[in-house]
Parts: sequence; C-alpha cells; structure tokens
Amino acid sequence: MASPWKTASVPGLQLGLGCGFWICRSYRLLFRAGAMGPHVVPRQLVWLSRWQAVCARGASVQHRTRAGVSRIPSLLSPGGALGASPLVRRSSSSTPPGAPEVVLTQQRYPVTRLPFSAVSAEDLAAFERILPGGVVTDPEVLEASNVDWLRTVRGCSKVLLRPRTSQEVARILRYCHERNLAVNPQGGNTGMVGGSVPVFDEIILSTTLMNRIISFHSVSGTLVCQAGCVLEELSQYVEERGFVMPLDLGAKGSCHIGGNVATNAGGLRFLRYGSLHGTVLGLEVLADGTVLDCLTSLRKDNTGYDLKQLFIGSEGTLGVITAVSIQCPPKPRAVNVAFLGCPGFAEVLQTFSSGKELLGEILSAYEFMDAECMWLVTHHLHLASPVQESPFYVLVETSGSRAGHDAEKLSDFLERALSSGLVTDGTVATDQTRLKALWALRERISEALSRDGYVYKYDLSLPTERLYDLVSDLRARLGSQAKHVVGYGHLGDGNLHLNVTSEAFSPSLLADLEPYVYEWTARQRGSVSAEHGLGFKKRGVLSYSKPPEALRLMQQLKALLDPKGILNPYKTLPVQA
Amino acid sequence: MASPWKTASVPGLQLGLGCGFWICRSYRLLFRAGAMGPHVVPRQLVWLSRWQAVCARGASVQHRTRAGVSRIPSLLSPGGALGASPLVRRSSSSTPPGAPEVVLTQQRYPVTRLPFSAVSAEDLAAFERILPGGVVTDPEVLEASNVDWLRTVRGCSKVLLRPRTSQEVARILRYCHERNLAVNPQGGNTGMVGGSVPVFDEIILSTTLMNRIISFHSVSGTLVCQAGCVLEELSQYVEERGFVMPLDLGAKGSCHIGGNVATNAGGLRFLRYGSLHGTVLGLEVLADGTVLDCLTSLRKDNTGYDLKQLFIGSEGTLGVITAVSIQCPPKPRAVNVAFLGCPGFAEVLQTFSSGKELLGEILSAYEFMDAECMWLVTHHLHLASPVQESPFYVLVETSGSRAGHDAEKLSDFLERALSSGLVTDGTVATDQTRLKALWALRERISEALSRDGYVYKYDLSLPTERLYDLVSDLRARLGSQAKHVVGYGHLGDGNLHLNVTSEAFSPSLLADLEPYVYEWTARQRGSVSAEHGLGFKKRGVLSYSKPPEALRLMQQLKALLDPKGILNPYKTLPVQA
Repeated sequence: MASPWKTASVPGLQLGLGCGFWICRSYRLLFRAGAMGPHVVPRQLVWLSRWQAVCARGASVQHRTRAGVSRIPSLLSPGGALGASPLVRRSSSSTPPGAPEVVLTQQRYPVTRLPFSAVSAEDLAAFERILPGGVVTDPEVLEASNVDWLRTVRGCSKVLLRPRTSQEVARILRYCHERNLAVNPQGGNTGMVGGSVPVFDEIILSTTLMNRIISFHSVSGTLVCQAGCVLEELSQYVEERGFVMPLDLGAKGSCHIGGNVATNAGGLRFLRYGSLHGTVLGLEVLADGTVLDCLTSLRKDNTGYDLKQLFIGSEGTLGVITAVSIQCPPKPRAVNVAFLGCPGFAEVLQTFSSGKELLGEILSAYEFMDAECMWLVTHHLHLASPVQESPFYVLVETSGSRAGHDAEKLSDFLERALSSGLVTDGTVATDQTRLKALWALRERISEALSRDGYVYKYDLSLPTERLYDLVSDLRARLGSQAKHVVGYGHLGDGNLHLNVTSEAFSPSLLADLEPYVYEWTARQRGSVSAEHGLGFKKRGVLSYSKPPEALRLMQQLKALLDPKGILNPYKTLPVQA
Repeated sequence: MASPWKTASVPGLQLGLGCGFWICRSYRLLFRAGAMGPHVVPRQLVWLSRWQAVCARGASVQHRTRAGVSRIPSLLSPGGALGASPLVRRSSSSTPPGAPEVVLTQQRYPVTRLPFSAVSAEDLAAFERILPGGVVTDPEVLEASNVDWLRTVRGCSKVLLRPRTSQEVARILRYCHERNLAVNPQGGNTGMVGGSVPVFDEIILSTTLMNRIISFHSVSGTLVCQAGCVLEELSQYVEERGFVMPLDLGAKGSCHIGGNVATNAGGLRFLRYGSLHGTVLGLEVLADGTVLDCLTSLRKDNTGYDLKQLFIGSEGTLGVITAVSIQCPPKPRAVNVAFLGCPGFAEVLQTFSSGKELLGEILSAYEFMDAECMWLVTHHLHLASPVQESPFYVLVETSGSRAGHDAEKLSDFLERALSSGLVTDGTVATDQTRLKALWALRERISEALSRDGYVYKYDLSLPTERLYDLVSDLRARLGSQAKHVVGYGHLGDGNLHLNVTSEAFSPSLLADLEPYVYEWTARQRGSVSAEHGLGFKKRGVLSYSKPPEALRLMQQLKALLDPKGILNPYKTLPVQA
C-alpha cells in the first residue's frame, strides 16, 4: 500500500535503513503528495512516513538475529540516548552498600512459626550425605536466598540445599517429611509477593544447579528441561533452533522455568501464546518424596485427570516441580515494536481496539505505562524516552512470518491511530537492539520502582475500561503520603500493575491502601492477583477473589498432597481459623 | 506475486470467481509464459494457477458470511457432486429401522454393579418436586439417552432428569448424595468412549434444558453460558458478534459446551487456539450439591490453585459442570481451505513442515485422511472427492485478518508443495459453502465409519513421524478379519484416529487389536487417548500412558471430591484392585 506521505529530500538526513526507525526530531518538514501542493505535514506523522518510505523501498524490514550487524546511525549508537543493556538480571541481594537492612518478616508481620522441627547438626550431616558439597550454611551466601529481590521480606534460614537431580530432591523431601522439617522451594528468587524466601527458618531448596536441558524436538518445538533452567538461557537455546519460549518477562535473566510454572507466570507474551496452563505439556513433581512423572511431550493426552494443572500456580505449596515439558511456538521471522504516546487513557483503549482489528493475528503484545513510569525509568535508570512527553505510552509488538505483510498491517494501523488523534507521537523498531531498547522502557519499570523507595505492589485483573480509574483514584486519596502512584501493565490481558512508593515502609500508608485496593477490585469482580500469585504477602486477601467453597477445596488439596504442611508454609493459603 | 503460469483462453470455461476455486477436470491445457513458447503445464498446477489468477485480478478472495450470495458455477451447485449439508447433527438414537439392537453393556463387558441404591417411587416423587415436569420415565424417550450415538454401549436407566438451573442441579445432587443414588451426567451424548451413557441404572442428569447464554462481552469476546448450550449454536451466536468459538468438532451440531469441557474436547481448531485448559476462563461446578463458583471472566487470575482445571477432562467423575466462561478469539476475516492429494505419508509430513514455514500464524488446521477414509465418505455418505484419487489427502485451513496477505501466503505454499511433488492435486475454497463441503469430507468420516459396521475406535497421540506406521502395521496384522482399517486425524497435533470396522462385534478381532494397539502406542511414549477421554471403554488402559503414582493421585482426588463415588461411576478411573 502506498503511503499518502512523502519525505522531503533533506541532505544529510540519516535514516535507520533496514534496522531501526527512530524519530529524528530535527527533520520534520514533509510534503503531501497531491493536487494541493506542498504544505507542512503534522509533526507526528513524520516518523511514520519515514518508516513507510523505507519499507516501501524494499524488503528491508527484516528480523535480525543477535548475530546480525546493526546499522543504526551513529547518533543512535550503543551507549547513546537509550542507555544500558535492557537485559534484566535481578541480582539476588547480598545487602547493597548503603541499603537499609531488610526487617525480618516475623518482626514486621503478625505471623507465628508452626511447630516444624528445627534443623539439627544431624540433619545437616544427613543432607551432606545426600548432597556431598551441595549444602550451604555460610550466612553471607544464605543472605541472598533469605531476602526477596524487592528487599521487602526476610527469612532466617540456616541452610540452603542445591540438588542436581530429581532423585536428590526426592531423597531430601523424604527426609524432611519424616523429620517434619519445613521446606522453601526457591527458583530465581524474582517473585513479587514474598513467596520465594523463607518466613522463618525453612530449609531453602534451590533449583539453581538443576539447569540441564533434557531434550528438544526440532520439528515440534517441544522443550523438556530441568526446573532450574534460567528463562533467558532457554530463550536463547530455542531461538537458535527456530523457536521461541511461549513466555517472556522482565525477570527473564534470573527467573527459573520451574518457578515460572510454579507461579503460573503471565508476562509479556501472554496476549499471543496464552497461559502456561495451555503451553506446559508435562511436569515432574515431588511432594513427600514420591516422583509424580507427568513429563509427557504430547500436545494432547486425555488419559485421566490432567494432574500437572494442579501444580501450575500452586507456588510450591503442593509439590516441588523438578522438570518441565513446554511447547515452544515457531520463532517469528519478523518482529516490529511501535512505541507510541497517547493523550489519555481512553485513547490507549481505542488504540488497542484498532490494533486488534488491523494487526489481527500478528499482534503479540500491547503494553501501557503512564507518565510517572516514564519519569521513573528515565530518572533512576537513565533511559531516554524515544517519543515526546505524553500522559500515556503504549508498546505495540507484532510478530509474524512475513516482514512485508506485517509492515503493511502495522503501517495501516499506525496511520489510522495517528490520523484519528489516538496517538500523538511514536517510533518503530525492527532490529534486535532497538527492539530491546524499547522493551526495556516497559520491562525495567519494576527495577526503577525498587530504586525509588519502599514499594507497595498490586497486580490486578480489572475490566479494561475501568483499569486506570483506580490509579487516579488512589493518587487523589493518598496525596503527598506517597512518592509515586503509578500504573502500567499488560493492557491486552486486562492486567494492571499498580505501584505506590514511599521513602520507607509506612504502616499508615499501608492502612490507606489496604483493604481499599482489594475492595475496589472486588467491586469490579476483578482479581487481586492477576499474575504474581499470593505468596506470603497476598495470602490474606484471597477471599476478595475466591468464594469460601474454593478456599475449602484448596485447603483439602493441600492436606491431601502435603499432609504435614511442610512445603512452602505460610504461603498461598490463608491462615486457618 | 505474479504466477509463472497462465491459463489458456478456453471458451466457455466457468471459473468460480471470487467464491470457490474448484478443479474443473475438463480444462487442463495451460501454457507456460516465457521464451520457451507454449507447452503443456503439469496437470496438477492448473487449479492453483487459476486460483492465483483470480486472486491477482482483485481483492476477490473474501471471507463470505452465511448471508453472502454464493456464485458457484452451476456445475457445482448445491445438490451437485458434493452432496448434502456438511453440518453434522448426531441423532441420538432411538433404534433406527432395521438396525440391530445394542447389547446391554453389562452383558457384553465384565462389569459389576456397585452397591448404589435403586431409584424408588419415593425418589421419583422427590425429583418431581424439585423439577416439576422435568422427570422423564418414558422408556422410548429414555432409549436415546441409554445408548451412545455409536450404538456400542447401552445402559438401563429408568429416569432422566432435565434441570434448567444450577440450583436445581444442586438440589438433585444433594438428594442423590444423601440417598446414595448414582448419577450419569449427560450433555449431547456424542462421546466416543461410552462415557456419556449409564452402564447400569444410573440416573441420567441431562443438561439439555440448561441452554441459556448468560453474558457476552463484545470487546473482550468472553462468553459465559450454561453447560447445555450446543456448540454450533454458540458458534453462530459469537460469529454474529465478530468472534469464533476456540473449539470446533464434527459433533458440533449436537454436543454441549459442558460436555466439551468435561471431556477436554480437542477438535479441529486445537492447532490454532490450543487446549481448553488455556481457553476456559471459569467454571461453575457441583459435586455433592455444593456450588463451586469459579465462573470468572478474567483472562488472568492467580489467586490460589486453579481449581477449574481439575474438572476439565474429568468426564463428570469429579463434579457436574453447570456453566462455562470461555475466551473467544476474534473471527478471522479471511478463511481459505485447500484440499490436497499427497502421494505418500512422508509427503503429508513434509507438506505440514512447509505449511508451518510458509503459512506461519495463519495456519489454523492441518488434517489428514487416507484413501480408505475417502472411500467410506464417498460410498456411505455419497460425498464426492474434489481431487484425483490419492493415497492420502490433507486439508489445510488458513484463518487470518487480511485476505490479500493470506492468499499470497497460501499461494506460495501451494506452489512450493506442487512444484516439489509433495502434492499431486488439489483445490482451494474461500466461500462458506465450499469451505463447509471440503470440511465435511474430513468431519464426516466418523459418521461414515458408523455406517460401515461395528467400529473399533482408537484415538492416539503419537510422534508424527511414526503416526501412520501403526495403521499399515494393523492392516497387515488383521488381514481379512477387518472390513476397513483407516487412519485420519489432526496431524498438526500428532493425533491419529485409528478405526477398524467389522460386520458385527467380534471378540476375536478385539483380541487381535487389544492390547496390541496400546502396547504399540506405549512403546512410542504416546497417549492411548489423545482427545476422546477414557469414559467406560478405555478406563482399563490408562496405565499404558500414566504411571502408578498418577493413578493413585487420581483415586485420591476422586475420593476427596466424590466420597461416595456416585458421579459417573464405572468411568475414567480403572477398577480398583
């Protein structure tokens, strides 16, 4: 499709040919092709026109591999305006210099230790026999596993176990079951709700060394691997073989696939590839030491109850996931990301509707963030906004099999969004480096928040049309008590990440937030935990989203699978009356 | 993209312009455009060339609505070669004239009645109080609910209950639980494994009158409805609103959505939209009379264990599904179906690989059938094959948002498949009537089989590269004992439907089939029930695909949710030792 816009010939203009298409703020004079003669084109259409023009010159909109040579013009070269690598490796935290000590969970929250045994010297000797060299008791090393990455909760475990095989996990769990020792299964420790660290002195059972890929089927794209494989490493592995992982999230550089499944992680590709309940084909799980081998690689298997489903999202309270079989979709040959500024939330919603209509099956992500989020990532992480200041920003990703077709669809979408005023400025990227830089603006909000102070995190499912009302409402309610009240998230899935920051933890601020946020959500029939799970911090609010019959059945399932309650105690299930 | 082929001008040639593109067997002389001058083009490329030529003339490859006027040439008009309506309404069976009586299940199979109460006159009076006018005891009406549609199993229930509301179901189940009366939940009675009819005198609890749509969200596409809604009616409802159901199957004209979910139906759209474990958002379920309301409409909800998953595929043995919330994807604006002949199974597999590569995200179905299947549908149902006789046939469906792009992708795919000899003949359809006619060839195989005699049905997940070996193997093994040994199914999902027919039920033929088929499947680490479930007929073979630990957990879950075992007894779970 020919563009109605033509770029004026401006000597010296550097276009990001074939790689990334960036707004070059200096050159905005364009001419309308047609009978009316040349006139100034609305400023916001320039970048689009330029992108379309480059697309039209040839099949230059190609998906570049990591190995591909990036031809970004020098004014946009690495280390330039967009800042550092967007890859997030969430450093699990030995206390950073100058950071305040994290208060012990048992001191901050009203929680009572359950009558589990305490780890004795004999227990340590027994673990050492099961895992020669895999038993860690050094307090400095333990520190990183006792504190969550958000630095909001802290346990006081004295021992960290690092098995390498399911058989070792089985022996550990059999032993702990017999000895009535509580166990805290831990993956990458990137959770948001305090589910991945001990509350008291639970034994930390880490999947760190269980990082072996068991098999990969190069035709079907079925990956079978141990639970401790890091998501980003799996992504790299399958991408080299022409596939992608069906999930992606900000913590990909640290999180483990077993933890992703245990917490039913949603993330950035949910809109396209759906939930892990659909993409996980099989699991190997252990509770009391018995291996439950449901590690099938079949796309379809209706032989009895789909038992693996029970463990997806159970946060390690029903069993320890030791291996995962997952269906990887083919790697899209063309990926585009548009980063757009919108004048209001109504326009964010309308742009989404328009995207669903015009991008159809290639729409793979639709994320939004507000102006305060942009302030946080630019201020704390020194990233630069690629578009002019706006009340809202959206990130639209397309993933498809044919670059030319995708560019045409995207072009039509952007043209409509701009000409109707839904979008006021934007930029489009097609090469890996720029894609990652744009994604970083969205993915690193959580990291920026954690540098802003103490963070009160809410992860809600709400009807999209009401999604942002809660943010505005809270901003008014909290006034100067809060440093920032921000809203961002997976708009395409109706998932709002609402975050509030303050200098330090404040009980009075918390009292203004809760139960207000939960009641507000329940009135909309929303979910008080869309994708983060309940862990330790949210287990008390389950009843805002689940009826008493569901709670009862949850307790019954827990009693069935973990009769002594040793698996990740104080998590997920509300305290029993 | 321009085609290398040109159609010769043949006066009087009727082309299916803009609607369906059919092989017209008479006119096959084409000329190659180029320096070599005119010469005869391979016969099999004619139809493709013709289709491409029409596509190139304009945007004529459009998805037509049901209301659209079909401009199929007269030689292909309704009532012509392709036969009757492809819509399958599986008539639940009061004995068809001349059909042999179906033997009582308890007489054919070694099964013992469990010590449930028998329905008394007092019970009937109690039911009548709960459901005034909804209690059926007329033996003629009961006949259709006592016999499965395949006419292979038969119960002897004396009462059929037809509630309209969840509250009525709750009262019935509470009563049955107290009185220790066994209950057989029944949807459209279209199951393949005897799961939907009683084995002895279980009370039949039908969802037929629970057919109300509760809500539909026109932006998100979330449908909430009662369990007894017929799949095809739901499809029509959501299609009128711009969406499609995420599942489709041959029995759509009769099957109920509640039954689909209870059996975790796979079907024809699985390749594109995945499993019901991913698309079902919420369920309302009843076991002992307690309503478990997990009828959320949220795409994401991680508040505790995902309890609904337990009931998806549990075949009514853990609870009765009374309402379903399901995510409907947007209706594709362009749908194409290509029906192709392949010279061998290796070519079927290679064509699939090529389709995944060139069709990418618009590939929505890849089905295959062998020559014997084609014989059955042409012989028993009087359908005509649209392509020349081949050892194998594949049906490739694309669904996308932009007709022009999709046509170009499909064209490239077909050109490669033809020029490389993977496909020897074919036809393409884009209008509803022709699409349905092509789909009927695949969807009605099951119906054709049931007219061929007694059917031994196997529904297996196997590694695709070995999928057809079992069919060839069995054909040699059974020799003249079998009327037909056929293979067809959802190749894209690794799902083979293996069917064997004989004049009447034969224990010796059965002995040659089983456990042979199951052992063969287990050696490939396949599934002995890919999508049909276990029901009554397959519950004994569960151990070929599930380890003892899984069986034990299944029994424990059954005991937890249905302690008296009154829900669909003799189904799914193996007989306890």
